[in-house]
Amino acid sequence: MTPFEHTVELRVRYAETDAMGIVWHGNYLSYFEVARTESLRAAGIASYRALEEAGIMMPVVDVGMEFFSPARYDDVLRVTVRVREPLRARIRFEYEISNADGARVMGGFTVLAFMDAKTRRPCRPPKELQNFFK
Amino acid sequence: MTPFEHTVELRVRYAETDAMGIVWHGNYLSYFEVARTESLRAAGIASYRALEEAGIMMPVVDVGMEFFSPARYDDVLRVTVRVREPLRARIRFEYEISNADGARVMGGFTVLAFMDAKTRRPCRPPKELQNFFK
Amino acid sequence: MTPFEHTVELRVRYAETDAMGIVWHGNYLSYFEVARTESLRAAGIASYRALEEAGIMMPVVDVGMEFFSPARYDDVLRVTVRVREPLRARIRFEYEISNADGARVMGGFTVLAFMDAKTRRPCRPPKELQNFFK
Amino acid sequence: MTPFEHTVELRVRYAETDAMGIVWHGNYLSYFEVARTESLRAAGIASYRALEEAGIMMPVVDVGMEFFSPARYDDVLRVTVRVREPLRARIRFEYEISNADGARVMGGFTVLAFMDAKTRRPCRPPKELQNFFK
Repeated sequence: MTPFEHTVELRVRYAETDAMGIVWHGNYLSYFEVARTESLRAAGIASYRALEEAGIMMPVVDVGMEFFSPARYDDVLRVTVRVREPLRARIRFEYEISNADGARVMGGFTVLAFMDAKTRRPCRPPKELQNFFK
Repeated sequence: MTPFEHTVELRVRYAETDAMGIVWHGNYLSYFEVARTESLRAAGIASYRALEEAGIMMPVVDVGMEFFSPARYDDVLRVTVRVREPLRARIRFEYEISNADGARVMGGFTVLAFMDAKTRRPCRPPKELQNFFK
Repeated sequence: MTPFEHTVELRVRYAETDAMGIVWHGNYLSYFEVARTESLRAAGIASYRALEEAGIMMPVVDVGMEFFSPARYDDVLRVTVRVREPLRARIRFEYEISNADGARVMGGFTVLAFMDAKTRRPCRPPKELQNFFK
Repeated sequence: MTPFEHTVELRVRYAETDAMGIVWHGNYLSYFEVARTESLRAAGIASYRALEEAGIMMPVVDVGMEFFSPARYDDVLRVTVRVREPLRARIRFEYEISNADGARVMGGFTVLAFMDAKTRRPCRPPKELQNFFK
Protein backbone atom coordinates (compact mmCIF):
# COMPACT_ATOMS: atom_id res chain seq x y z
CA MET A 1 0.00 0.00 0.00
CA THR A 2 0.96 3.64 -0.39
CA PRO A 3 1.60 5.08 3.04
CA PHE A 4 -1.14 7.49 4.04
CA GLU A 5 -0.41 10.72 5.92
CA HIS A 6 -2.37 13.74 7.06
CA THR A 7 -1.60 16.71 9.30
CA VAL A 8 -3.92 18.88 11.36
CA GLU A 9 -3.22 21.94 13.46
CA LEU A 10 -4.90 22.63 16.75
CA ARG A 11 -4.49 24.99 19.66
CA VAL A 12 -4.19 23.78 23.26
CA ARG A 13 -7.28 24.67 25.32
CA TYR A 14 -7.12 25.76 28.93
CA ALA A 15 -9.29 22.85 30.05
CA GLU A 16 -6.69 20.46 28.62
CA THR A 17 -3.92 21.59 30.96
CA ASP A 18 -3.20 20.26 34.44
CA ALA A 19 -1.65 21.62 37.62
CA MET A 20 1.86 21.14 36.17
CA GLY A 21 0.90 23.87 33.71
CA ILE A 22 1.14 21.47 30.77
CA VAL A 23 -1.28 19.43 28.67
CA TRP A 24 -2.56 16.51 30.76
CA HIS A 25 -1.11 13.44 29.06
CA GLY A 26 -4.46 11.72 28.48
CA ASN A 27 -5.67 14.63 26.38
CA TYR A 28 -3.22 13.79 23.61
CA LEU A 29 -5.50 10.84 22.86
CA SER A 30 -8.18 13.38 22.07
CA TYR A 31 -5.77 15.14 19.68
CA PHE A 32 -5.11 11.75 18.06
CA GLU A 33 -8.86 11.36 17.54
CA VAL A 34 -9.13 14.75 15.88
CA ALA A 35 -6.30 13.80 13.51
CA ARG A 36 -7.95 10.44 12.68
CA THR A 37 -11.31 12.06 12.04
CA GLU A 38 -9.86 14.75 9.79
CA SER A 39 -7.56 12.34 7.92
CA LEU A 40 -10.48 10.09 6.94
CA ARG A 41 -12.47 13.13 5.86
CA ALA A 42 -9.53 14.53 3.86
CA ALA A 43 -9.03 11.20 2.12
CA GLY A 44 -12.66 11.29 1.08
CA ILE A 45 -13.03 7.74 2.36
CA ALA A 46 -15.84 7.93 4.80
CA SER A 47 -16.36 10.04 7.83
CA TYR A 48 -16.10 8.13 11.06
CA ARG A 49 -19.52 9.52 11.89
CA ALA A 50 -20.97 7.95 8.75
CA LEU A 51 -19.39 4.63 9.74
CA GLU A 52 -21.07 4.81 13.13
CA GLU A 53 -24.39 5.68 11.52
CA ALA A 54 -23.90 2.63 9.30
CA GLY A 55 -23.55 0.52 12.43
CA ILE A 56 -19.76 0.14 12.70
CA MET A 57 -17.82 1.27 15.72
CA MET A 58 -14.06 1.42 16.04
CA PRO A 59 -13.01 0.94 19.65
CA VAL A 60 -9.37 1.55 20.56
CA VAL A 61 -7.66 -1.69 21.59
CA ASP A 62 -4.00 -0.73 21.90
CA VAL A 63 -2.23 2.53 22.72
CA GLY A 64 1.37 3.70 22.99
CA MET A 65 2.60 7.21 23.80
CA GLU A 66 6.01 8.74 24.33
CA PHE A 67 6.54 12.30 25.59
CA PHE A 68 9.46 14.52 24.64
CA SER A 69 8.66 18.09 25.61
CA PRO A 70 5.51 19.50 27.19
CA ALA A 71 2.89 21.59 25.45
CA ARG A 72 1.16 24.48 27.22
CA TYR A 73 -2.06 26.44 27.01
CA ASP A 74 -2.46 28.32 23.72
CA ASP A 75 0.37 26.43 21.98
CA VAL A 76 -0.35 25.60 18.36
CA LEU A 77 0.36 21.92 17.73
CA ARG A 78 0.80 20.05 14.46
CA VAL A 79 -0.52 16.50 14.66
CA THR A 80 0.57 14.19 11.85
CA VAL A 81 -1.19 10.85 11.52
CA ARG A 82 0.04 7.99 9.34
CA VAL A 83 -1.21 4.57 8.26
CA ARG A 84 1.67 2.43 7.00
CA GLU A 85 0.32 -1.08 7.18
CA PRO A 86 -2.45 -2.63 5.10
CA LEU A 87 -5.71 -3.00 6.94
CA ARG A 88 -6.49 -6.41 8.41
CA ALA A 89 -8.92 -7.12 11.22
CA ARG A 90 -7.54 -3.99 12.86
CA ILE A 91 -6.07 -0.69 11.76
CA ARG A 92 -2.99 0.97 13.19
CA PHE A 93 -2.54 4.74 13.20
CA GLU A 94 0.77 6.39 14.10
CA TYR A 95 1.08 9.98 15.32
CA GLU A 96 3.69 12.68 15.74
CA ILE A 97 3.01 15.97 17.45
CA SER A 98 5.29 18.98 17.18
CA ASN A 99 4.91 22.59 18.27
CA ALA A 100 5.20 25.90 16.40
CA ASP A 101 9.00 25.89 16.87
CA GLY A 102 9.17 22.49 15.20
CA ALA A 103 10.14 20.74 18.45
CA ARG A 104 8.87 17.21 18.98
CA VAL A 105 6.21 17.22 21.69
CA MET A 106 5.17 13.57 21.69
CA GLY A 107 4.41 10.60 19.49
CA GLY A 108 2.40 7.45 19.65
CA PHE A 109 0.09 4.96 18.03
CA THR A 110 -3.42 3.59 18.41
CA VAL A 111 -4.78 0.30 17.12
CA LEU A 112 -8.51 0.20 16.47
CA ALA A 113 -10.79 -2.79 15.98
CA PHE A 114 -14.04 -2.96 14.03
CA MET A 115 -17.20 -3.73 15.97
CA ASP A 116 -20.81 -4.24 14.98
CA ALA A 117 -22.68 -1.54 16.92
CA LYS A 118 -25.72 -3.80 17.49
CA THR A 119 -24.12 -7.09 18.45
CA ARG A 120 -21.07 -5.40 20.03
CA ARG A 121 -18.98 -8.14 18.41
CA PRO A 122 -15.94 -7.86 16.12
CA CYS A 123 -16.86 -7.41 12.48
CA ARG A 124 -15.15 -6.98 9.11
CA PRO A 125 -13.73 -3.57 8.27
CA PRO A 126 -16.02 -1.49 6.07
CA LYS A 127 -15.39 -1.77 2.31
CA GLU A 128 -14.36 1.88 1.93
CA LEU A 129 -11.51 1.39 4.36
CA GLN A 130 -10.54 -2.00 2.95
CA ASN A 131 -10.22 -0.56 -0.54
CA PHE A 132 -8.30 2.48 0.59
CA PHE A 133 -5.79 0.79 2.89
CA LYS A 134 -4.84 -2.30 0.91
CA MET B 1 -42.66 16.76 49.90
CA THR B 2 -39.96 16.00 52.47
CA PRO B 3 -36.75 17.60 51.31
CA PHE B 4 -34.25 15.00 50.16
CA GLU B 5 -30.53 15.29 50.91
CA HIS B 6 -27.45 13.14 50.42
CA THR B 7 -23.73 13.75 50.83
CA VAL B 8 -20.78 12.05 49.14
CA GLU B 9 -17.06 12.49 49.66
CA LEU B 10 -14.56 12.45 46.84
CA ARG B 11 -10.95 13.31 46.32
CA VAL B 12 -9.76 15.67 43.59
CA ARG B 13 -7.85 13.85 40.83
CA TYR B 14 -4.82 15.28 39.10
CA ALA B 15 -6.51 15.12 35.70
CA GLU B 16 -9.24 17.40 37.04
CA THR B 17 -6.90 20.32 37.72
CA ASP B 18 -5.86 23.01 35.27
CA ALA B 19 -2.86 25.28 34.78
CA MET B 20 -4.06 27.57 37.60
CA GLY B 21 -3.37 24.64 39.90
CA ILE B 22 -7.04 24.33 40.82
CA VAL B 23 -9.96 22.15 39.76
CA TRP B 24 -11.07 23.18 36.26
CA HIS B 25 -14.52 24.67 36.78
CA GLY B 26 -16.30 22.33 34.34
CA ASN B 27 -15.24 19.30 36.36
CA TYR B 28 -17.54 20.27 39.22
CA LEU B 29 -20.38 19.17 36.95
CA SER B 30 -18.86 15.71 37.07
CA TYR B 31 -18.84 15.87 40.88
CA PHE B 32 -22.52 16.88 40.72
CA GLU B 33 -23.19 13.76 38.63
CA VAL B 34 -21.48 11.53 41.17
CA ALA B 35 -23.61 13.03 43.93
CA ARG B 36 -26.82 12.55 41.89
CA THR B 37 -25.95 8.96 41.08
CA GLU B 38 -25.13 8.06 44.67
CA SER B 39 -28.12 9.91 46.11
CA LEU B 40 -30.55 7.94 43.95
CA ARG B 41 -28.79 4.72 44.89
CA ALA B 42 -28.83 5.60 48.60
CA ALA B 43 -32.53 6.41 48.47
CA GLY B 44 -33.13 2.98 47.01
CA ILE B 45 -35.22 4.60 44.30
CA ALA B 46 -33.66 3.43 41.12
CA SER B 47 -30.16 3.65 39.84
CA TYR B 48 -29.75 6.09 37.00
CA ARG B 49 -28.20 3.23 35.07
CA ALA B 50 -31.36 1.17 35.50
CA LEU B 51 -33.39 4.11 34.24
CA GLU B 52 -31.25 4.31 31.11
CA GLU B 53 -31.55 0.57 30.59
CA ALA B 54 -35.32 1.01 30.89
CA GLY B 55 -35.14 3.55 28.07
CA ILE B 56 -35.24 6.83 29.96
CA MET B 57 -32.49 9.41 29.70
CA MET B 58 -32.14 12.52 31.81
CA PRO B 59 -30.35 15.24 29.88
CA VAL B 60 -29.26 18.37 31.73
CA VAL B 61 -31.22 21.41 30.57
CA ASP B 62 -30.21 24.14 32.99
CA VAL B 63 -27.08 24.76 35.07
CA GLY B 64 -25.93 27.34 37.60
CA MET B 65 -22.61 27.43 39.46
CA GLU B 66 -21.03 29.88 41.87
CA PHE B 67 -17.43 29.59 43.06
CA PHE B 68 -16.16 30.68 46.46
CA SER B 69 -12.73 29.18 47.07
CA PRO B 70 -10.71 26.88 44.81
CA ALA B 71 -10.10 23.18 45.36
CA ARG B 72 -6.75 21.58 44.56
CA TYR B 73 -5.34 18.18 43.68
CA ASP B 74 -5.83 15.62 46.48
CA ASP B 75 -8.35 17.76 48.39
CA VAL B 76 -11.18 15.78 49.92
CA LEU B 77 -14.49 17.38 49.01
CA ARG B 78 -17.95 16.89 50.50
CA VAL B 79 -20.68 17.21 47.92
CA THR B 80 -24.19 17.60 49.28
CA VAL B 81 -27.10 17.26 46.89
CA ARG B 82 -30.68 18.27 47.67
CA VAL B 83 -34.08 18.01 46.02
CA ARG B 84 -36.51 20.51 47.54
CA GLU B 85 -39.23 20.80 44.95
CA PRO B 86 -41.76 18.19 43.91
CA LEU B 87 -40.99 16.56 40.60
CA ARG B 88 -42.85 17.87 37.57
CA ALA B 89 -41.78 17.51 33.97
CA ARG B 90 -38.27 18.24 35.20
CA ILE B 91 -36.26 17.68 38.35
CA ARG B 92 -34.04 20.23 40.05
CA PHE B 93 -31.01 19.21 42.10
CA GLU B 94 -29.08 21.68 44.26
CA TYR B 95 -25.50 21.20 45.37
CA GLU B 96 -23.03 22.51 47.92
CA ILE B 97 -19.38 21.56 47.97
CA SER B 98 -17.11 22.16 50.92
CA ASN B 99 -13.57 21.04 51.69
CA ALA B 100 -12.03 19.18 54.64
CA ASP B 101 -11.70 22.46 56.59
CA GLY B 102 -15.41 23.04 56.17
CA ALA B 103 -14.88 26.00 53.84
CA ARG B 104 -17.39 26.52 51.06
CA VAL B 105 -15.80 25.67 47.71
CA MET B 106 -18.75 26.18 45.38
CA GLY B 107 -22.45 25.59 44.94
CA GLY B 108 -24.90 25.21 42.14
CA PHE B 109 -27.90 23.51 40.63
CA THR B 110 -28.83 21.39 37.64
CA VAL B 111 -32.26 20.89 36.12
CA LEU B 112 -32.77 17.61 34.26
CA ALA B 113 -35.49 16.68 31.82
CA PHE B 114 -36.85 13.21 31.05
CA MET B 115 -36.35 11.88 27.54
CA ASP B 116 -37.39 8.69 25.80
CA ALA B 117 -34.11 7.12 24.69
CA LYS B 118 -35.59 5.79 21.44
CA THR B 119 -37.64 8.71 20.21
CA ARG B 120 -35.33 11.29 21.82
CA ARG B 121 -38.46 13.18 22.82
CA PRO B 122 -39.54 14.44 26.25
CA CYS B 123 -41.38 11.83 28.28
CA ARG B 124 -43.02 11.48 31.69
CA PRO B 125 -40.76 10.96 34.68
CA PRO B 126 -40.44 7.33 35.74
CA LYS B 127 -42.91 6.16 38.40
CA GLU B 128 -40.18 5.46 40.98
CA LEU B 129 -39.08 9.08 40.88
CA GLN B 130 -42.64 10.43 40.79
CA ASN B 131 -43.55 8.51 43.90
CA PHE B 132 -40.42 9.47 45.75
CA PHE B 133 -40.35 13.18 44.97
CA LYS B 134 -43.98 14.14 45.34
CA MET C 1 -19.19 50.94 25.89
CA THR C 2 -19.59 49.47 22.41
CA PRO C 3 -20.80 45.90 22.77
CA PHE C 4 -18.06 43.45 21.83
CA GLU C 5 -18.80 40.26 19.88
CA HIS C 6 -16.76 37.47 18.34
CA THR C 7 -17.64 34.11 16.79
CA VAL C 8 -15.56 30.95 16.48
CA GLU C 9 -16.33 27.67 14.79
CA LEU C 10 -15.32 24.33 16.20
CA ARG C 11 -16.09 20.70 15.57
CA VAL C 12 -17.29 18.34 18.30
CA ARG C 13 -14.64 15.76 19.25
CA TYR C 14 -15.43 12.16 20.08
CA ALA C 15 -13.91 12.49 23.54
CA GLU C 16 -16.41 15.26 24.29
CA THR C 17 -19.47 13.04 23.91
CA ASP C 18 -21.06 10.90 26.59
CA ALA C 19 -23.11 7.70 26.71
CA MET C 20 -26.24 9.61 25.63
CA GLY C 21 -24.45 10.11 22.32
CA ILE C 22 -24.34 13.88 22.81
CA VAL C 23 -21.79 16.42 24.02
CA TRP C 24 -21.35 16.04 27.78
CA HIS C 25 -22.77 19.27 29.21
CA GLY C 26 -19.60 20.26 31.10
CA ASN C 27 -17.62 20.35 27.87
CA TYR C 28 -19.50 23.41 26.68
CA LEU C 29 -17.50 25.32 29.29
CA SER C 30 -14.42 24.34 27.33
CA TYR C 31 -16.02 25.71 24.14
CA PHE C 32 -16.74 28.94 26.05
CA GLU C 33 -13.03 29.11 26.93
CA VAL C 34 -12.01 28.71 23.32
CA ALA C 35 -14.35 31.54 22.34
CA ARG C 36 -12.99 33.81 25.11
CA THR C 37 -9.40 33.09 24.15
CA GLU C 38 -9.99 33.75 20.47
CA SER C 39 -12.10 36.84 21.06
CA LEU C 40 -9.35 38.50 23.09
CA ARG C 41 -6.82 37.57 20.43
CA ALA C 42 -9.05 38.86 17.63
CA ALA C 43 -9.58 42.15 19.44
CA GLY C 44 -5.83 42.55 19.63
CA ILE C 45 -6.18 43.30 23.32
CA ALA C 46 -3.98 40.84 25.02
CA SER C 47 -3.83 37.10 24.85
CA TYR C 48 -5.02 35.39 28.01
CA ARG C 49 -1.71 33.56 27.98
CA ALA C 50 0.18 36.87 28.07
CA LEU C 51 -1.97 37.97 31.00
CA GLU C 52 -1.05 34.81 32.90
CA GLU C 53 2.61 35.32 32.09
CA ALA C 54 2.25 38.86 33.43
CA GLY C 55 0.98 37.37 36.69
CA ILE C 56 -2.77 37.79 36.32
CA MET C 57 -5.17 34.88 36.45
CA MET C 58 -8.87 34.99 35.67
CA PRO C 59 -10.73 32.33 37.63
CA VAL C 60 -14.36 31.68 36.78
CA VAL C 61 -16.65 32.73 39.65
CA ASP C 62 -20.14 32.41 38.22
CA VAL C 63 -21.64 30.21 35.49
CA GLY C 64 -25.03 29.79 33.87
CA MET C 65 -25.97 27.43 31.06
CA GLU C 66 -29.21 26.58 29.31
CA PHE C 67 -29.58 23.72 26.82
CA PHE C 68 -31.94 23.69 23.85
CA SER C 69 -30.94 20.90 21.49
CA PRO C 70 -28.05 18.46 21.77
CA ALA C 71 -24.87 18.49 19.71
CA ARG C 72 -23.24 15.29 18.53
CA TYR C 73 -19.83 14.04 17.46
CA ASP C 74 -18.51 15.78 14.34
CA ASP C 75 -21.10 18.57 14.46
CA VAL C 76 -19.73 21.96 13.53
CA LEU C 77 -20.72 24.51 16.15
CA ARG C 78 -20.67 28.30 16.03
CA VAL C 79 -19.86 29.85 19.38
CA THR C 80 -20.59 33.56 19.70
CA VAL C 81 -19.22 35.39 22.72
CA ARG C 82 -20.28 38.88 23.79
CA VAL C 83 -19.27 41.44 26.40
CA ARG C 84 -22.05 43.97 26.95
CA GLU C 85 -21.20 45.50 30.30
CA PRO C 86 -18.27 47.73 31.17
CA LEU C 87 -15.54 45.97 33.08
CA ARG C 88 -15.51 46.44 36.85
CA ALA C 89 -13.86 44.14 39.36
CA ARG C 90 -15.17 41.30 37.25
CA ILE C 91 -15.95 40.66 33.61
CA ARG C 92 -19.05 38.97 32.25
CA PHE C 93 -19.02 37.03 28.99
CA GLU C 94 -22.21 35.78 27.34
CA TYR C 95 -22.36 32.93 24.85
CA GLU C 96 -24.65 31.46 22.23
CA ILE C 97 -23.95 28.21 20.45
CA SER C 98 -25.74 27.13 17.29
CA ASN C 99 -25.16 24.27 14.88
CA ALA C 100 -24.64 24.14 11.11
CA ASP C 101 -28.42 24.19 10.53
CA GLY C 102 -28.64 27.41 12.52
CA ALA C 103 -30.50 25.73 15.39
CA ARG C 104 -29.80 26.97 18.90
CA VAL C 105 -27.82 24.37 20.82
CA MET C 106 -27.26 26.17 24.12
CA GLY C 107 -26.38 29.49 25.67
CA GLY C 108 -24.85 30.76 28.84
CA PHE C 109 -22.57 33.16 30.63
CA THR C 110 -19.43 33.13 32.73
CA VAL C 111 -18.22 35.80 35.14
CA LEU C 112 -14.48 35.94 35.72
CA ALA C 113 -12.55 37.66 38.49
CA PHE C 114 -9.01 38.98 38.38
CA MET C 115 -6.45 37.38 40.67
CA ASP C 116 -2.80 38.05 41.37
CA ALA C 117 -1.07 34.78 40.48
CA LYS C 118 1.46 35.10 43.31
CA THR C 119 -0.69 36.21 46.21
CA ARG C 120 -3.79 34.40 44.89
CA ARG C 121 -5.78 37.46 45.97
CA PRO C 122 -8.20 39.57 43.93
CA CYS C 123 -6.47 42.30 41.95
CA ARG C 124 -7.37 45.11 39.55
CA PRO C 125 -8.13 44.19 35.98
CA PRO C 126 -5.19 44.67 33.60
CA LYS C 127 -5.03 48.06 31.85
CA GLU C 128 -5.50 46.57 28.37
CA LEU C 129 -8.84 45.13 29.37
CA GLN C 130 -9.90 48.24 31.30
CA ASN C 131 -9.27 50.43 28.29
CA PHE C 132 -11.00 48.11 25.88
CA PHE C 133 -14.12 47.36 27.90
CA LYS C 134 -14.98 50.79 29.30
CA MET D 1 13.39 -5.08 45.73
CA THR D 2 10.12 -6.47 47.07
CA PRO D 3 7.46 -5.97 44.44
CA PHE D 4 4.97 -3.33 45.51
CA GLU D 5 1.24 -3.66 44.85
CA HIS D 6 -1.90 -1.73 45.73
CA THR D 7 -5.53 -1.95 44.63
CA VAL D 8 -8.20 0.73 44.58
CA GLU D 9 -11.87 0.52 43.66
CA LEU D 10 -13.68 3.21 41.77
CA ARG D 11 -16.98 3.63 40.01
CA VAL D 12 -17.27 4.82 36.41
CA ARG D 13 -18.73 8.33 36.16
CA TYR D 14 -21.13 9.41 33.45
CA ALA D 15 -18.77 12.15 32.26
CA GLU D 16 -16.13 9.47 31.59
CA THR D 17 -18.18 7.66 28.97
CA ASP D 18 -18.32 8.42 25.26
CA ALA D 19 -20.86 8.01 22.47
CA MET D 20 -20.01 4.29 22.19
CA GLY D 21 -21.56 3.98 25.64
CA ILE D 22 -18.24 2.92 27.16
CA VAL D 23 -15.44 4.60 29.10
CA TRP D 24 -13.49 6.88 26.75
CA HIS D 25 -10.07 5.23 26.49
CA GLY D 26 -8.10 8.30 27.63
CA ASN D 27 -9.94 8.33 30.96
CA TYR D 28 -8.22 5.13 32.05
CA LEU D 29 -5.10 7.28 32.47
CA SER D 30 -7.02 9.19 35.10
CA TYR D 31 -7.84 5.90 36.86
CA PHE D 32 -4.13 5.04 36.72
CA GLU D 33 -3.39 8.36 38.45
CA VAL D 34 -5.88 7.62 41.22
CA ALA D 35 -4.22 4.24 41.79
CA ARG D 36 -0.73 5.81 41.88
CA THR D 37 -1.83 8.52 44.31
CA GLU D 38 -3.51 6.06 46.65
CA SER D 39 -0.69 3.50 46.48
CA LEU D 40 1.88 6.08 47.59
CA ARG D 41 -0.43 7.19 50.39
CA ALA D 42 -1.08 3.60 51.47
CA ALA D 43 2.63 2.84 51.54
CA GLY D 44 3.11 5.80 53.83
CA ILE D 45 5.90 6.98 51.58
CA ALA D 46 4.93 10.45 50.65
CA SER D 47 1.88 11.85 49.06
CA TYR D 48 2.38 13.01 45.52
CA ARG D 49 0.94 16.32 46.64
CA ALA D 50 3.65 16.67 49.28
CA LEU D 51 6.26 15.93 46.61
CA GLU D 52 4.88 18.72 44.44
CA GLU D 53 4.84 21.10 47.38
CA ALA D 54 8.48 20.15 47.97
CA GLY D 55 9.22 21.21 44.41
CA ILE D 56 9.30 17.87 42.59
CA MET D 57 7.00 17.06 39.70
CA MET D 58 6.59 13.68 38.05
CA PRO D 59 5.60 14.09 34.41
CA VAL D 60 4.53 11.01 32.48
CA VAL D 61 7.05 10.16 29.75
CA ASP D 62 5.88 6.79 28.45
CA VAL D 63 2.47 5.10 28.28
CA GLY D 64 1.13 1.76 27.10
CA MET D 65 -2.48 0.54 27.24
CA GLU D 66 -4.24 -2.59 26.05
CA PHE D 67 -8.02 -3.00 26.08
CA PHE D 68 -9.86 -6.28 26.60
CA SER D 69 -13.49 -5.57 27.41
CA PRO D 70 -15.24 -2.22 27.80
CA ALA D 71 -16.40 -0.66 31.04
CA ARG D 72 -19.67 1.26 31.27
CA TYR D 73 -21.25 3.95 33.40
CA ASP D 74 -21.71 2.90 37.03
CA ASP D 75 -19.42 -0.14 36.72
CA VAL D 76 -17.24 -0.73 39.75
CA LEU D 77 -13.64 -1.22 38.67
CA ARG D 78 -10.69 -2.62 40.58
CA VAL D 79 -7.41 -0.95 39.62
CA THR D 80 -4.27 -2.73 40.72
CA VAL D 81 -0.97 -0.88 40.44
CA ARG D 82 2.45 -2.51 40.76
CA VAL D 83 6.08 -1.40 40.89
CA ARG D 84 8.40 -4.30 40.08
CA GLU D 85 11.63 -2.59 39.14
CA PRO D 86 13.98 -0.64 41.38
CA LEU D 87 13.76 3.09 40.94
CA ARG D 88 16.38 4.73 38.75
CA ALA D 89 16.06 8.08 37.03
CA ARG D 90 12.50 7.08 36.26
CA ILE D 91 9.80 4.97 37.85
CA ARG D 92 7.58 2.46 36.07
CA PHE D 93 4.08 1.64 37.28
CA GLU D 94 2.07 -1.26 35.85
CA TYR D 95 -1.72 -1.50 36.03
CA GLU D 96 -4.49 -4.04 35.67
CA ILE D 97 -8.16 -3.12 35.70
CA SER D 98 -10.94 -5.66 36.18
CA ASN D 99 -14.67 -5.29 36.72
CA ALA D 100 -17.01 -6.62 39.42
CA ASP D 101 -17.36 -9.93 37.56
CA GLY D 102 -13.59 -10.34 37.66
CA ALA D 103 -13.25 -9.86 33.90
CA ARG D 104 -10.14 -8.10 32.63
CA VAL D 105 -11.07 -4.65 31.34
CA MET D 106 -7.66 -3.30 30.39
CA GLY D 107 -4.04 -3.09 31.46
CA GLY D 108 -1.11 -0.82 30.93
CA PHE D 109 1.92 0.98 32.26
CA THR D 110 3.20 4.50 32.77
CA VAL D 111 6.79 5.63 33.17
CA LEU D 112 7.30 8.86 35.11
CA ALA D 113 10.35 11.09 35.30
CA PHE D 114 11.39 13.41 38.12
CA MET D 115 11.49 17.12 37.39
CA ASP D 116 12.50 20.15 39.43
CA ALA D 117 9.36 22.29 39.50
CA LYS D 118 11.36 25.55 39.34
CA THR D 119 13.96 24.79 36.70
CA ARG D 120 11.67 22.35 34.84
CA ARG D 121 14.74 20.13 34.39
CA PRO D 122 15.20 16.45 35.28
CA CYS D 123 16.22 15.91 38.88
CA ARG D 124 17.04 13.03 41.23
CA PRO D 125 14.14 11.06 42.66
CA PRO D 126 13.16 12.13 46.19
CA LYS D 127 14.84 10.19 49.02
CA GLU D 128 11.55 8.74 50.28
CA LEU D 129 10.94 7.04 46.96
CA GLN D 130 14.58 5.97 46.54
CA ASN D 131 14.55 4.26 49.90
CA PHE D 132 11.24 2.56 49.34
CA PHE D 133 11.80 1.27 45.80
CA LYS D 134 15.38 0.01 45.96
